[in-house]
Amino acid sequence: MIRQEYKEMLNGKSVIRELFTFATERGKEIGYDNVFDYSLGNPSVPTPAYFNECMIDMLKNEDPVKLHGYSPSLGIPEVRATIADSLNRRFGMNYTMEHIFMTTGAAGAVAHAVRCVTKPGDTVLTFAPFFPEYKPYINMTGAVLKVVPANTENFQINFEKFEEMFDENVTAVLVNTPNNPTGATYSAATLKKLADFLYDKQKEYGHDIFLISDEPYREIVFNGADAPYVSKFYDNSLSCYSYSKSLSLPGERIGYVAANPKCTDAPLIAAICSQISRGTGHNCPPSIIQLAVAKCVDMTSDLSVYETNMEILYKELVSLGFEVVKPGGTFYIFPKALEDDAVAFCEKAKKYDLVLVPSDSFGCPGYFRMAYCVQTEKVERSLEALRKFVKNEYR
Amino acid sequence: MIRQEYKEMLNGKSVIRELFTFATERGKEIGYDNVFDYSLGNPSVPTPAYFNECMIDMLKNEDPVKLHGYSPSLGIPEVRATIADSLNRRFGMNYTMEHIFMTTGAAGAVAHAVRCVTKPGDTVLTFAPFFPEYKPYINMTGAVLKVVPANTENFQINFEKFEEMFDENVTAVLVNTPNNPTGATYSAATLKKLADFLYDKQKEYGHDIFLISDEPYREIVFNGADAPYVSKFYDNSLSCYSYSKSLSLPGERIGYVAANPKCTDAPLIAAICSQISRGTGHNCPPSIIQLAVAKCVDMTSDLSVYETNMEILYKELVSLGFEVVKPGGTFYIFPKALEDDAVAFCEKAKKYDLVLVPSDSFGCPGYFRMAYCVQTEKVERSLEALRKFVKNEYR
Repeated sequence: MIRQEYKEMLNGKSVIRELFTFATERGKEIGYDNVFDYSLGNPSVPTPAYFNECMIDMLKNEDPVKLHGYSPSLGIPEVRATIADSLNRRFGMNYTMEHIFMTTGAAGAVAHAVRCVTKPGDTVLTFAPFFPEYKPYINMTGAVLKVVPANTENFQINFEKFEEMFDENVTAVLVNTPNNPTGATYSAATLKKLADFLYDKQKEYGHDIFLISDEPYREIVFNGADAPYVSKFYDNSLSCYSYSKSLSLPGERIGYVAANPKCTDAPLIAAICSQISRGTGHNCPPSIIQLAVAKCVDMTSDLSVYETNMEILYKELVSLGFEVVKPGGTFYIFPKALEDDAVAFCEKAKKYDLVLVPSDSFGCPGYFRMAYCVQTEKVERSLEALRKFVKNEYR
Repeated sequence: MIRQEYKEMLNGKSVIRELFTFATERGKEIGYDNVFDYSLGNPSVPTPAYFNECMIDMLKNEDPVKLHGYSPSLGIPEVRATIADSLNRRFGMNYTMEHIFMTTGAAGAVAHAVRCVTKPGDTVLTFAPFFPEYKPYINMTGAVLKVVPANTENFQINFEKFEEMFDENVTAVLVNTPNNPTGATYSAATLKKLADFLYDKQKEYGHDIFLISDEPYREIVFNGADAPYVSKFYDNSLSCYSYSKSLSLPGERIGYVAANPKCTDAPLIAAICSQISRGTGHNCPPSIIQLAVAKCVDMTSDLSVYETNMEILYKELVSLGFEVVKPGGTFYIFPKALEDDAVAFCEKAKKYDLVLVPSDSFGCPGYFRMAYCVQTEKVERSLEALRKFVKNEYR
């Protein structure tokens, strides 16, 4: 009596997970330090010591009945207010508590945001290459995910294809900047052009089109730059955030949806998300984790290692002749494979203990992703393996 | 563009929440200590000190990258294995890790379990009086909740009505024992009769019928008794548990689904739940909370206060002439109101600073719920108010 659709989902194995399993098994043979595992996007730097100190302080000094007590399903009011203030300070927004809905990470944020502003049968457009988990997040709401082909020149938006695919069934557009898997950061020009286009289409079709912005990598931006804040460009924006990467807390599942105060039904979005969460049994993130991130709201882990690693890898990849767009942020890089079949390319790389992810599941075949959230020392050691791999297999 | 169905959910205000708001406001006038607030089912005793000690120990001594790292979406393997072992020891079951799916409390557990074994249009039967949140949990899966009228004699199952309402569209039956709001604990005889009936119906209709057992109050049982373990009686059972009440952690959102090893597709249930959780963005409960409850798996808070409070209230209610079934567990009691309109009855009680919940939203009009998870001293002080209320309004 198990629903057939779920059984079928089980068969769609995650390529990334399988590669991670390979890396773990190989690690048992030769020591994990000798496996150049670029498969998983798991932060490699610790959370700020202050986060743990805050947790310990609360556990020691707060009334446990209150500390571990129910959070309202929208999140703890003080936490939501603190987040609103921080966003206002940093991005010149005008959020209040009522625009913030606390979630279990960006996954929960995107799943709730999509469900909130689409109905079954609607089209949600996203841009290749894209995070493959968008498929379950969107398909289980009943909306239909369609993927705009990549702009492989610079991994900004392929506006030509986007305009071709746009029709009146589109009620939401999902962007991810800085981007997993390319590391591309949308420029202000890209976001301006996107916003203008969506404003035109709203007018043309006479209905709202929401821009859902998945931004767990917002704080991992290189060259001392800031990523433009998506919601500044377009009123009907829902920002989906996670502390997984910025505070290195992926396991603690904490993030939020921030509804632009100028969006349609702005005062209702968080409340509606909380109704959705009743139905999914999500309810609210853990109280103590909400309280602890609120205390660290303007902090990040030491994220500099990611830029260091990127520079090392980018330089080597270029010198080996790879076609590669230099990442503007994240801890990913997305070079073109040295043969058309990226799966075969990544399979061959395994012989050199290089674990690379072929790009097929990201909707952009012929490329591969390296997640360089690893120790810099290991990145440096991997270069020799990379050189050998290219020389032996492709020269 | 917000979905209309969610906007409508917003209008269905929670009676319990409104009463709690009344209690809070009234508390500002006369001191919350003087408001006899029996509205909310929020544990009044602290979590065991050991829980907080384990949290602190991990925060101080574990590698933070590992501690706060991703949990697999089914839950951390060691945690699942520890829970399986504990259930086997305590209830003579044969669970292994693969039968346990970690969730954000019983809410997440019930929502996932229902979605796993029903399809849109199926009927799910539950028994009045019932926890009103079952409606969103079930209706958002597309299945249809139908409520069997109460057996008001003892709040066991009304088998006559149950058999009348049963048809081949029923694919799941949802029970809650010990029960919110009545405090009734299903006897072994009730569970045996239920199981026999369901086995017969499975044979008659030729399809599985799952018994979904919501048991967050499993450890709050009076008279030194144990609540019979539902899954022992019926193979196609999914047990939905939460540590909210037993460890006084309602805000930390942690629980599980345990699939009976003999149920249909037993090795797949947890895996299927994890596919569902991908779609809802639930993904997995926080790592550190999983790890901490696993260390406290055979412990509870000091739950004895609930039985003390129950005895005091039960005695007084009986002596005041209330019709009331003595609770076998939980921290609820469910007497018959002194007039047919329980809403009017509870409204009058407010004048005496007694906050009682009318039973209408539980599907059993004419009764009221008292949540006696409050300090015993306050319960004792409330008796005078209760006496005055009855004398002035109904004598």
